[in-house]
Amino acid sequence: MSIFIESASNSKFKFIKNLTKKKYRLKEEKFLVEGYRIIKQIFEKNLLNTIIIDASLAQEKINELKDEFSKIDMIFLDKKLFGQISDTKNSQGIMGICKMNLDLDMNLDEEFILVLDRVQDPGNMGTIIRTADAVGIKNIILLKGCVDPFNEKALRSSMGSICNLRLFNLEEEETLNLLKDNGYSIVSTFLRTNNYYDKVKYPNKVALVIGNEANGISDNLMQNSDILVKIPIFGEVESLNASIASAIMMYKIKETK
Amino acid sequence: MSIFIESASNSKFKFIKNLTKKKYRLKEEKFLVEGYRIIKQIFEKNLLNTIIIDASLAQEKINELKDEFSKIDMIFLDKKLFGQISDTKNSQGIMGICKMNLDLDMNLDEEFILVLDRVQDPGNMGTIIRTADAVGIKNIILLKGCVDPFNEKALRSSMGSICNLRLFNLEEEETLNLLKDNGYSIVSTFLRTNNYYDKVKYPNKVALVIGNEANGISDNLMQNSDILVKIPIFGEVESLNASIASAIMMYKIKETK
Repeated sequence: MSIFIESASNSKFKFIKNLTKKKYRLKEEKFLVEGYRIIKQIFEKNLLNTIIIDASLAQEKINELKDEFSKIDMIFLDKKLFGQISDTKNSQGIMGICKMNLDLDMNLDEEFILVLDRVQDPGNMGTIIRTADAVGIKNIILLKGCVDPFNEKALRSSMGSICNLRLFNLEEEETLNLLKDNGYSIVSTFLRTNNYYDKVKYPNKVALVIGNEANGISDNLMQNSDILVKIPIFGEVESLNASIASAIMMYKIKETK
Repeated sequence: MSIFIESASNSKFKFIKNLTKKKYRLKEEKFLVEGYRIIKQIFEKNLLNTIIIDASLAQEKINELKDEFSKIDMIFLDKKLFGQISDTKNSQGIMGICKMNLDLDMNLDEEFILVLDRVQDPGNMGTIIRTADAVGIKNIILLKGCVDPFNEKALRSSMGSICNLRLFNLEEEETLNLLKDNGYSIVSTFLRTNNYYDKVKYPNKVALVIGNEANGISDNLMQNSDILVKIPIFGEVESLNASIASAIMMYKIKETK
Protein backbone atom coordinates (compact mmCIF):
# COMPACT_ATOMS: atom_id res chain seq x y z
CA MET A 1 0.00 0.00 0.00
CA SER A 2 1.25 3.45 -0.86
CA ILE A 3 -0.50 6.75 -0.11
CA PHE A 4 0.32 10.43 -0.49
CA ILE A 5 -0.70 12.94 2.17
CA GLU A 6 -0.62 16.68 1.73
CA SER A 7 -3.04 17.88 4.37
CA ALA A 8 -2.17 18.24 8.05
CA SER A 9 -5.75 17.33 8.92
CA ASN A 10 -5.43 13.88 7.35
CA SER A 11 -6.12 11.31 10.09
CA LYS A 12 -3.14 9.15 9.17
CA PHE A 13 -0.85 12.18 9.40
CA LYS A 14 -2.32 13.03 12.79
CA PHE A 15 -1.62 9.47 13.90
CA ILE A 16 2.03 9.80 12.83
CA LYS A 17 2.40 13.17 14.48
CA ASN A 18 1.02 11.77 17.72
CA LEU A 19 3.83 9.23 17.77
CA THR A 20 6.24 12.08 18.53
CA LYS A 21 4.61 12.05 22.00
CA LYS A 22 5.45 9.46 24.65
CA LYS A 23 1.83 8.92 25.71
CA TYR A 24 0.77 7.87 22.22
CA ARG A 25 3.83 5.73 21.65
CA LEU A 26 2.98 3.71 24.74
CA LYS A 27 -0.70 3.46 23.81
CA GLU A 28 -0.01 2.38 20.24
CA GLU A 29 3.10 0.35 21.10
CA LYS A 30 4.75 1.97 18.09
CA PHE A 31 7.50 4.54 17.66
CA LEU A 32 9.10 6.66 14.94
CA VAL A 33 12.68 6.34 13.76
CA GLU A 34 14.54 8.46 11.25
CA GLY A 35 17.30 7.63 8.79
CA TYR A 36 18.01 4.79 6.40
CA ARG A 37 20.44 2.82 8.55
CA ILE A 38 18.23 2.32 11.60
CA ILE A 39 15.18 1.65 9.41
CA LYS A 40 17.10 -1.11 7.66
CA GLN A 41 18.08 -2.68 11.00
CA ILE A 42 14.51 -2.59 12.26
CA PHE A 43 13.24 -4.00 8.97
CA GLU A 44 15.61 -6.95 9.38
CA LYS A 45 14.13 -7.59 12.82
CA ASN A 46 10.61 -7.64 11.35
CA LEU A 47 9.64 -4.66 13.49
CA LEU A 48 9.14 -2.18 10.66
CA ASN A 49 5.49 -1.33 10.14
CA THR A 50 5.43 1.58 7.67
CA ILE A 51 7.92 3.72 5.78
CA ILE A 52 7.36 7.47 5.63
CA ILE A 53 9.02 9.30 2.76
CA ASP A 54 9.47 13.00 2.02
CA ALA A 55 7.70 13.16 -1.37
CA SER A 56 10.25 15.72 -2.58
CA LEU A 57 13.04 13.11 -2.55
CA ALA A 58 14.61 12.33 -5.94
CA GLN A 59 12.54 9.81 -7.92
CA GLU A 60 15.56 7.54 -8.29
CA LYS A 61 15.97 7.39 -4.50
CA ILE A 62 12.24 6.68 -4.09
CA ASN A 63 12.45 3.83 -6.60
CA GLU A 64 15.36 2.30 -4.69
CA LEU A 65 13.38 2.43 -1.46
CA LYS A 66 10.32 0.94 -3.16
CA ASP A 67 12.44 -1.96 -4.39
CA GLU A 68 14.16 -2.55 -1.11
CA PHE A 69 11.09 -2.34 1.10
CA SER A 70 8.54 -3.66 -1.38
CA LYS A 71 6.45 -5.47 1.24
CA ILE A 72 6.18 -2.52 3.63
CA ASP A 73 3.40 0.09 3.52
CA MET A 74 4.63 3.47 2.29
CA ILE A 75 3.36 6.92 3.14
CA PHE A 76 4.58 9.86 1.08
CA LEU A 77 4.35 13.17 2.87
CA ASP A 78 4.37 16.62 1.42
CA LYS A 79 7.77 18.21 2.27
CA LYS A 80 6.22 20.59 4.82
CA LEU A 81 4.37 17.82 6.64
CA PHE A 82 7.51 15.69 6.71
CA GLY A 83 9.34 18.61 8.32
CA GLN A 84 6.72 18.70 11.08
CA ILE A 85 7.56 15.18 12.27
CA SER A 86 11.29 15.04 11.47
CA ASP A 87 13.57 15.79 14.41
CA THR A 88 16.83 16.19 12.49
CA LYS A 89 18.32 19.22 10.79
CA ASN A 90 19.60 17.59 7.63
CA SER A 91 17.01 14.90 7.21
CA GLN A 92 17.53 12.05 4.75
CA GLY A 93 13.80 12.27 4.05
CA ILE A 94 12.98 8.80 5.33
CA MET A 95 11.35 7.74 8.56
CA GLY A 96 9.76 4.56 9.81
CA ILE A 97 6.90 3.52 12.07
CA CYS A 98 8.13 0.59 14.16
CA LYS A 99 6.53 -1.87 16.51
CA MET A 100 7.82 -2.04 20.09
CA ASN A 101 8.90 -5.55 20.99
CA LEU A 102 7.06 -5.62 24.28
CA ASP A 103 5.57 -9.09 24.40
CA LEU A 104 8.79 -10.70 25.48
CA ASP A 105 9.63 -12.44 28.68
CA MET A 106 12.64 -11.57 30.75
CA ASN A 107 15.22 -14.31 30.54
CA LEU A 108 16.21 -14.79 34.15
CA ASP A 109 18.97 -17.21 33.32
CA GLU A 110 21.01 -14.35 31.86
CA GLU A 111 24.04 -13.63 34.03
CA PHE A 112 23.99 -9.87 33.59
CA ILE A 113 21.00 -7.53 33.82
CA LEU A 114 20.87 -3.73 33.81
CA VAL A 115 18.54 -1.65 36.00
CA LEU A 116 18.11 2.05 35.21
CA ASP A 117 16.91 4.31 38.01
CA ARG A 118 15.64 7.70 36.80
CA VAL A 119 18.17 8.09 33.98
CA GLN A 120 16.88 11.35 32.56
CA ASP A 121 19.10 12.49 29.72
CA PRO A 122 17.96 10.98 26.41
CA GLY A 123 21.54 10.94 25.06
CA ASN A 124 22.70 8.99 28.11
CA MET A 125 19.72 6.63 27.82
CA GLY A 126 20.53 5.84 24.19
CA THR A 127 24.26 5.47 24.79
CA ILE A 128 23.69 3.19 27.80
CA ILE A 129 21.41 0.97 25.69
CA ARG A 130 24.02 0.88 22.90
CA THR A 131 26.80 -0.08 25.33
CA ALA A 132 24.58 -2.68 27.03
CA ASP A 133 23.98 -4.25 23.63
CA ALA A 134 27.74 -4.20 22.92
CA VAL A 135 28.48 -6.00 26.15
CA GLY A 136 25.85 -8.63 25.39
CA ILE A 137 23.19 -7.63 27.91
CA LYS A 138 19.72 -8.82 26.88
CA ASN A 139 17.43 -7.38 29.59
CA ILE A 140 17.12 -3.83 30.83
CA ILE A 141 14.72 -2.86 33.60
CA LEU A 142 13.54 0.75 33.53
CA LEU A 143 12.31 2.05 36.86
CA LYS A 144 9.92 4.96 37.21
CA GLY A 145 11.33 8.36 36.25
CA CYS A 146 13.50 7.20 33.34
CA VAL A 147 13.29 9.17 30.12
CA ASP A 148 11.43 7.31 27.38
CA PRO A 149 14.00 5.21 25.46
CA PHE A 150 11.80 5.59 22.36
CA ASN A 151 12.26 9.34 22.46
CA GLU A 152 13.90 10.46 19.20
CA LYS A 153 17.15 11.65 20.73
CA ALA A 154 17.55 8.47 22.77
CA LEU A 155 16.87 6.40 19.63
CA ARG A 156 19.55 8.29 17.72
CA SER A 157 22.14 7.62 20.43
CA SER A 158 21.14 3.95 20.74
CA MET A 159 22.03 3.30 17.07
CA GLY A 160 19.33 0.68 16.68
CA SER A 161 20.38 -1.28 19.76
CA ILE A 162 16.95 -0.75 21.25
CA CYS A 163 15.71 -3.54 19.01
CA ASN A 164 18.45 -5.92 20.09
CA LEU A 165 17.42 -6.17 23.70
CA ARG A 166 14.35 -6.31 25.88
CA LEU A 167 13.11 -3.39 27.94
CA PHE A 168 10.82 -3.76 30.96
CA ASN A 169 9.06 -1.01 32.87
CA LEU A 170 8.87 -2.23 36.46
CA GLU A 171 8.34 -0.84 39.95
CA GLU A 172 11.26 -0.72 42.34
CA GLU A 173 9.90 -3.25 44.86
CA GLU A 174 8.86 -5.65 42.11
CA THR A 175 12.36 -5.36 40.66
CA LEU A 176 14.10 -6.03 43.96
CA ASN A 177 11.95 -9.10 44.59
CA LEU A 178 12.46 -10.41 41.08
CA LEU A 179 16.23 -9.99 41.27
CA LYS A 180 16.53 -11.53 44.71
CA ASP A 181 14.25 -14.45 43.90
CA ASN A 182 16.38 -15.22 40.87
CA GLY A 183 19.76 -15.10 42.53
CA TYR A 184 21.05 -11.78 41.23
CA SER A 185 23.48 -9.75 43.29
CA ILE A 186 22.69 -6.05 43.05
CA VAL A 187 25.74 -3.94 42.22
CA SER A 188 25.55 -0.16 42.51
CA THR A 189 28.08 2.64 42.25
CA PHE A 190 28.39 4.85 45.31
CA LEU A 191 30.79 7.70 46.00
CA ARG A 192 31.22 7.08 49.71
CA THR A 193 32.83 3.65 49.65
CA ASN A 194 36.44 2.57 49.41
CA ASN A 195 35.49 -0.51 47.46
CA TYR A 196 37.06 0.17 44.07
CA TYR A 197 35.31 -1.22 41.00
CA ASP A 198 38.42 -3.00 39.74
CA LYS A 199 39.27 -4.70 43.02
CA VAL A 200 35.94 -6.47 43.53
CA LYS A 201 35.13 -10.07 42.75
CA TYR A 202 31.77 -9.90 40.98
CA PRO A 203 29.36 -12.78 41.55
CA ASN A 204 27.94 -14.98 38.84
CA LYS A 205 24.61 -13.23 38.37
CA VAL A 206 24.82 -9.46 38.50
CA ALA A 207 22.15 -6.76 38.26
CA LEU A 208 24.01 -3.49 37.72
CA VAL A 209 22.06 -0.40 38.80
CA ILE A 210 22.66 2.91 37.02
CA GLY A 211 21.31 5.95 38.84
CA ASN A 212 20.11 9.43 38.03
CA GLU A 213 22.68 11.84 36.55
CA ALA A 214 22.52 14.27 39.47
CA ASN A 215 21.28 12.20 42.39
CA GLY A 216 22.53 8.67 41.84
CA ILE A 217 20.37 5.74 42.91
CA SER A 218 17.49 5.80 45.39
CA ASP A 219 18.10 5.15 49.10
CA ASN A 220 16.03 2.00 48.92
CA LEU A 221 18.08 0.59 46.05
CA MET A 222 21.24 1.56 47.88
CA GLN A 223 20.15 -0.26 51.04
CA ASN A 224 19.24 -3.32 49.04
CA SER A 225 22.48 -3.43 47.09
CA ASP A 226 24.75 -6.39 47.72
CA ILE A 227 27.88 -4.66 46.44
CA LEU A 228 28.65 -0.95 46.42
CA VAL A 229 31.61 0.09 44.33
CA LYS A 230 33.33 3.28 43.31
CA ILE A 231 35.13 4.32 40.14
CA PRO A 232 38.04 6.47 41.32
CA ILE A 233 38.53 10.05 40.11
CA PHE A 234 42.23 10.87 39.86
CA GLY A 235 41.86 14.38 38.44
CA GLU A 236 39.95 17.51 39.34
CA VAL A 237 36.52 16.95 37.78
CA GLU A 238 33.84 15.95 40.29
CA SER A 239 32.29 13.02 38.49
CA LEU A 240 32.05 10.99 35.31
CA ASN A 241 29.20 11.28 32.83
CA ALA A 242 26.52 8.66 33.65
CA SER A 243 26.86 6.78 30.38
CA ILE A 244 30.67 6.72 30.77
CA ALA A 245 30.50 5.37 34.33
CA SER A 246 27.98 2.73 33.22
CA ALA A 247 30.23 1.64 30.36
CA ILE A 248 33.28 1.28 32.58
CA MET A 249 31.21 -0.82 35.01
CA MET A 250 29.59 -2.95 32.30
CA TYR A 251 32.89 -3.83 30.63
CA LYS A 252 34.58 -4.47 33.99
CA ILE A 253 31.84 -6.87 35.10
CA LYS A 254 31.86 -8.54 31.67
CA GLU A 255 35.66 -8.98 31.86
CA THR A 256 35.28 -11.06 35.00
CA LYS A 257 32.75 -13.44 33.40
CA MET B 1 34.16 47.97 35.71
CA SER B 2 30.52 47.48 34.88
CA ILE B 3 28.76 48.48 31.66
CA PHE B 4 25.29 48.05 30.18
CA ILE B 5 24.83 47.35 26.47
CA GLU B 6 21.54 47.57 24.65
CA SER B 7 22.63 48.06 21.05
CA ALA B 8 23.76 45.23 18.78
CA SER B 9 26.10 47.68 17.05
CA ASN B 10 28.09 48.26 20.24
CA SER B 11 31.69 47.24 19.57
CA LYS B 12 32.04 45.31 22.84
CA PHE B 13 28.90 43.33 22.00
CA LYS B 14 30.30 42.59 18.53
CA PHE B 15 33.49 41.36 20.17
CA ILE B 16 31.49 39.00 22.41
CA LYS B 17 29.38 37.75 19.54
CA ASN B 18 32.51 37.01 17.51
CA LEU B 19 33.67 34.67 20.27
CA THR B 20 30.88 32.29 19.25
CA LYS B 21 33.08 31.61 16.18
CA LYS B 22 36.15 29.38 16.29
CA LYS B 23 38.32 31.73 14.19
CA TYR B 24 37.90 34.60 16.63
CA ARG B 25 38.34 32.41 19.69
CA LEU B 26 41.74 31.31 18.38
CA LYS B 27 42.74 34.85 17.42
CA GLU B 28 41.72 36.34 20.77
CA GLU B 29 42.74 33.27 22.83
CA LYS B 30 39.44 33.68 24.66
CA PHE B 31 36.21 31.69 24.75
CA LEU B 32 32.68 31.97 26.10
CA VAL B 33 31.16 29.72 28.74
CA GLU B 34 27.64 29.67 30.08
CA GLY B 35 26.23 28.83 33.50
CA TYR B 36 27.21 29.61 37.07
CA ARG B 37 28.99 26.37 37.89
CA ILE B 38 31.58 26.41 35.12
CA ILE B 39 32.13 30.17 35.55
CA LYS B 40 32.90 29.58 39.21
CA GLN B 41 35.42 26.85 38.32
CA ILE B 42 37.14 29.02 35.75
CA PHE B 43 37.20 31.94 38.19
CA GLU B 44 38.99 29.76 40.71
CA LYS B 45 41.61 28.97 38.09
CA ASN B 46 42.17 32.69 37.46
CA LEU B 47 41.07 32.30 33.86
CA LEU B 48 37.88 34.35 34.08
CA ASN B 49 38.16 37.64 32.24
CA THR B 50 34.66 39.12 32.19
CA ILE B 51 31.18 38.19 33.38
CA ILE B 52 28.22 38.75 31.06
CA ILE B 53 24.83 39.07 32.71
CA ASP B 54 21.32 39.16 31.29
CA ALA B 55 20.17 42.53 32.63
CA SER B 56 16.66 41.17 33.17
CA LEU B 57 17.86 38.87 35.95
CA ALA B 58 16.40 39.53 39.42
CA GLN B 59 18.23 42.33 41.24
CA GLU B 60 18.89 40.06 44.20
CA LYS B 61 20.66 37.55 41.93
CA ILE B 62 22.67 40.36 40.33
CA ASN B 63 23.77 41.61 43.74
CA GLU B 64 24.93 38.13 44.70
CA LEU B 65 27.01 37.90 41.53
CA LYS B 66 28.47 41.37 42.12
CA ASP B 67 29.53 40.32 45.60
CA GLU B 68 30.98 37.02 44.53
CA PHE B 69 32.89 38.27 41.50
CA SER B 70 33.65 41.77 42.74
CA LYS B 71 37.05 41.95 41.06
CA ILE B 72 35.86 40.81 37.63
CA ASP B 73 34.61 43.16 34.89
CA MET B 74 30.85 42.87 34.34
CA ILE B 75 28.86 43.46 31.19
CA PHE B 76 25.09 43.68 31.45
CA LEU B 77 23.29 42.84 28.24
CA ASP B 78 19.78 43.68 27.22
CA LYS B 79 17.74 40.43 27.34
CA LYS B 80 17.50 40.24 23.53
CA LEU B 81 21.23 40.69 23.03
CA PHE B 82 21.96 38.07 25.68
CA GLY B 83 19.71 35.67 23.77
CA GLN B 84 21.82 36.22 20.65
CA ILE B 85 24.95 34.83 22.27
CA SER B 86 23.46 32.24 24.63
CA ASP B 87 23.44 28.71 23.29
CA THR B 88 21.11 27.14 25.87
CA LYS B 89 17.34 26.93 25.96
CA ASN B 90 16.78 27.68 29.62
CA SER B 91 19.64 30.03 30.24
CA GLN B 92 20.65 30.99 33.77
CA GLY B 93 21.39 34.45 32.38
CA ILE B 94 25.11 34.35 33.13
CA MET B 95 28.05 33.82 30.81
CA GLY B 96 31.77 34.38 31.08
CA ILE B 97 34.63 35.39 28.80
CA CYS B 98 37.58 33.17 29.66
CA LYS B 99 41.24 33.08 28.77
CA MET B 100 42.63 29.99 27.07
CA ASN B 101 45.55 28.56 29.02
CA LEU B 102 47.77 28.14 25.97
CA ASP B 103 51.18 29.23 27.19
CA LEU B 104 51.90 25.98 28.92
CA ASP B 105 54.51 23.39 28.19
CA MET B 106 53.74 19.76 27.72
CA ASN B 107 54.98 17.75 30.66
CA LEU B 108 56.70 14.84 28.99
CA ASP B 109 57.35 13.03 32.24
CA GLU B 110 53.64 12.25 32.51
CA GLU B 111 53.02 8.54 32.05
CA PHE B 112 49.76 8.88 30.15
CA ILE B 113 49.00 11.21 27.23
CA LEU B 114 45.94 11.38 24.98
CA VAL B 115 46.06 12.03 21.22
CA LEU B 116 42.82 12.89 19.41
CA ASP B 117 42.70 12.27 15.67
CA ARG B 118 39.81 14.04 13.91
CA VAL B 119 37.30 13.62 16.75
CA GLN B 120 34.42 15.54 15.23
CA ASP B 121 31.41 15.39 17.48
CA PRO B 122 31.48 18.21 20.06
CA GLY B 123 29.65 16.08 22.64
CA ASN B 124 32.28 13.36 22.28
CA MET B 125 35.10 15.91 22.45
CA GLY B 126 33.78 17.35 25.71
CA THR B 127 33.07 13.95 27.25
CA ILE B 128 36.53 12.64 26.31
CA ILE B 129 38.13 15.69 27.95
CA ARG B 130 36.02 15.18 31.07
CA THR B 131 36.96 11.49 31.30
CA ALA B 132 40.65 12.28 30.63
CA ASP B 133 40.56 14.72 33.54
CA ALA B 134 38.88 12.08 35.74
CA VAL B 135 41.60 9.56 34.96
CA GLY B 136 44.29 12.12 35.77
CA ILE B 137 45.57 12.84 32.27
CA LYS B 138 47.26 16.26 32.03
CA ASN B 139 48.14 16.57 28.32
CA ILE B 140 45.91 16.15 25.27
CA ILE B 141 47.26 16.52 21.75
CA LEU B 142 44.66 17.57 19.15
CA LEU B 143 45.59 16.64 15.59
CA LYS B 144 44.20 18.43 12.55
CA GLY B 145 40.50 17.88 11.89
CA CYS B 146 39.34 17.79 15.52
CA VAL B 147 36.29 19.84 16.43
CA ASP B 148 37.18 22.93 18.48
CA PRO B 149 37.12 21.92 22.19
CA PHE B 150 36.11 25.50 23.02
CA ASN B 151 32.92 25.11 20.99
CA GLU B 152 29.93 25.66 23.29
CA LYS B 153 28.56 22.14 23.10
CA ALA B 154 31.99 20.61 23.76
CA LEU B 155 32.44 22.94 26.73
CA ARG B 156 29.08 21.90 28.17
CA SER B 157 30.01 18.21 27.95
CA SER B 158 33.48 18.81 29.40
CA MET B 159 32.00 20.20 32.65
CA GLY B 160 34.88 22.58 33.17
CA SER B 161 37.57 19.93 32.72
CA ILE B 162 39.01 21.86 29.82
CA CYS B 163 40.68 24.16 32.36
CA ASN B 164 42.17 21.26 34.30
CA LEU B 165 44.42 19.99 31.54
CA ARG B 166 46.60 21.24 28.73
CA LEU B 167 45.60 21.11 25.08
CA PHE B 168 48.11 21.22 22.22
CA ASN B 169 47.35 21.58 18.52
CA LEU B 170 50.07 19.62 16.74
CA GLU B 171 50.76 18.06 13.35
CA GLU B 172 50.77 14.29 13.04
CA GLU B 173 54.47 13.91 12.20
CA GLU B 174 55.51 16.32 14.93
CA THR B 175 53.40 14.32 17.38
CA LEU B 176 54.86 10.97 16.36
CA ASN B 177 58.41 12.33 16.72
CA LEU B 178 57.67 13.93 20.06
CA LEU B 179 56.11 10.76 21.46
CA LYS B 180 58.87 8.48 20.19
CA ASP B 181 61.65 10.79 21.36
CA ASN B 182 60.14 10.81 24.82
CA GLY B 183 59.67 7.09 25.22
CA TYR B 184 55.90 6.83 24.77
CA SER B 185 54.36 3.68 23.34
CA ILE B 186 51.51 4.50 20.99
CA VAL B 187 48.35 2.54 21.75
CA SER B 188 45.46 2.56 19.26
CA THR B 189 42.21 0.68 19.00
CA PHE B 190 41.72 -1.30 15.84
CA LEU B 191 38.87 -3.62 14.83
CA ARG B 192 40.95 -6.15 12.92
CA THR B 193 43.18 -7.45 15.68
CA ASN B 194 42.71 -10.25 18.16
CA ASN B 195 44.64 -8.39 20.80
CA TYR B 196 41.96 -7.68 23.41
CA TYR B 197 42.26 -4.51 25.46
CA ASP B 198 42.05 -6.36 28.77
CA LYS B 199 44.68 -8.97 27.95
CA VAL B 200 47.50 -6.58 27.09
CA LYS B 201 50.35 -5.52 29.32
CA TYR B 202 50.56 -1.74 28.84
CA PRO B 203 54.02 -0.15 29.00
CA ASN B 204 55.04 2.54 31.43
CA LYS B 205 54.53 5.55 29.18
CA VAL B 206 51.43 5.37 27.01
CA ALA B 207 50.04 7.72 24.36
CA LEU B 208 46.48 6.56 23.69
CA VAL B 209 45.14 7.57 20.26
CA ILE B 210 41.39 8.14 19.83
CA GLY B 211 40.23 8.22 16.22
CA ASN B 212 37.43 9.72 14.17
CA GLU B 213 33.89 8.51 14.96
CA ALA B 214 33.33 6.98 11.53
CA ASN B 215 36.82 6.26 10.19
CA GLY B 216 39.00 5.52 13.21
CA ILE B 217 42.63 6.62 13.18
CA SER B 218 44.73 7.54 10.13
CA ASP B 219 46.77 4.88 8.32
CA ASN B 220 49.96 6.63 9.29
CA LEU B 221 49.08 6.62 13.00
CA MET B 222 48.05 2.99 12.69
CA GLN B 223 51.38 2.02 11.11
CA ASN B 224 53.25 3.89 13.79
CA SER B 225 51.32 2.37 16.68
CA ASP B 226 53.24 0.11 19.02
CA ILE B 227 50.17 -1.66 20.34
CA LEU B 228 46.86 -2.24 18.55
CA VAL B 229 44.02 -3.42 20.75
CA LYS B 230 40.36 -4.19 20.38
CA ILE B 231 37.40 -3.80 22.72
CA PRO B 232 35.21 -6.82 22.03
CA ILE B 233 31.56 -6.48 21.00
CA PHE B 234 29.48 -9.35 22.41
CA GLY B 235 26.10 -8.18 21.14
CA GLU B 236 24.60 -7.10 17.84
CA VAL B 237 25.53 -3.41 17.62
CA GLU B 238 28.45 -2.68 15.27
CA SER B 239 30.52 -0.41 17.44
CA LEU B 240 30.78 1.60 20.63
CA ASN B 241 30.36 5.36 20.80
CA ALA B 242 33.82 7.02 20.53
CA SER B 243 33.70 8.62 23.97
CA ILE B 244 32.63 5.30 25.51
CA ALA B 245 35.44 3.35 23.83
CA SER B 246 37.95 6.01 24.94
CA ALA B 247 36.72 5.82 28.52
CA ILE B 248 37.00 2.04 28.67
CA MET B 249 40.57 2.28 27.30
CA MET B 250 41.59 5.15 29.59
CA TYR B 251 40.40 3.42 32.76
CA LYS B 252 41.90 0.11 31.67
CA ILE B 253 45.32 1.66 31.05
CA LYS B 254 45.07 3.59 34.32
CA GLU B 255 44.23 0.37 36.20
CA THR B 256 47.50 -1.17 35.13
CA LYS B 257 49.54 1.77 36.41
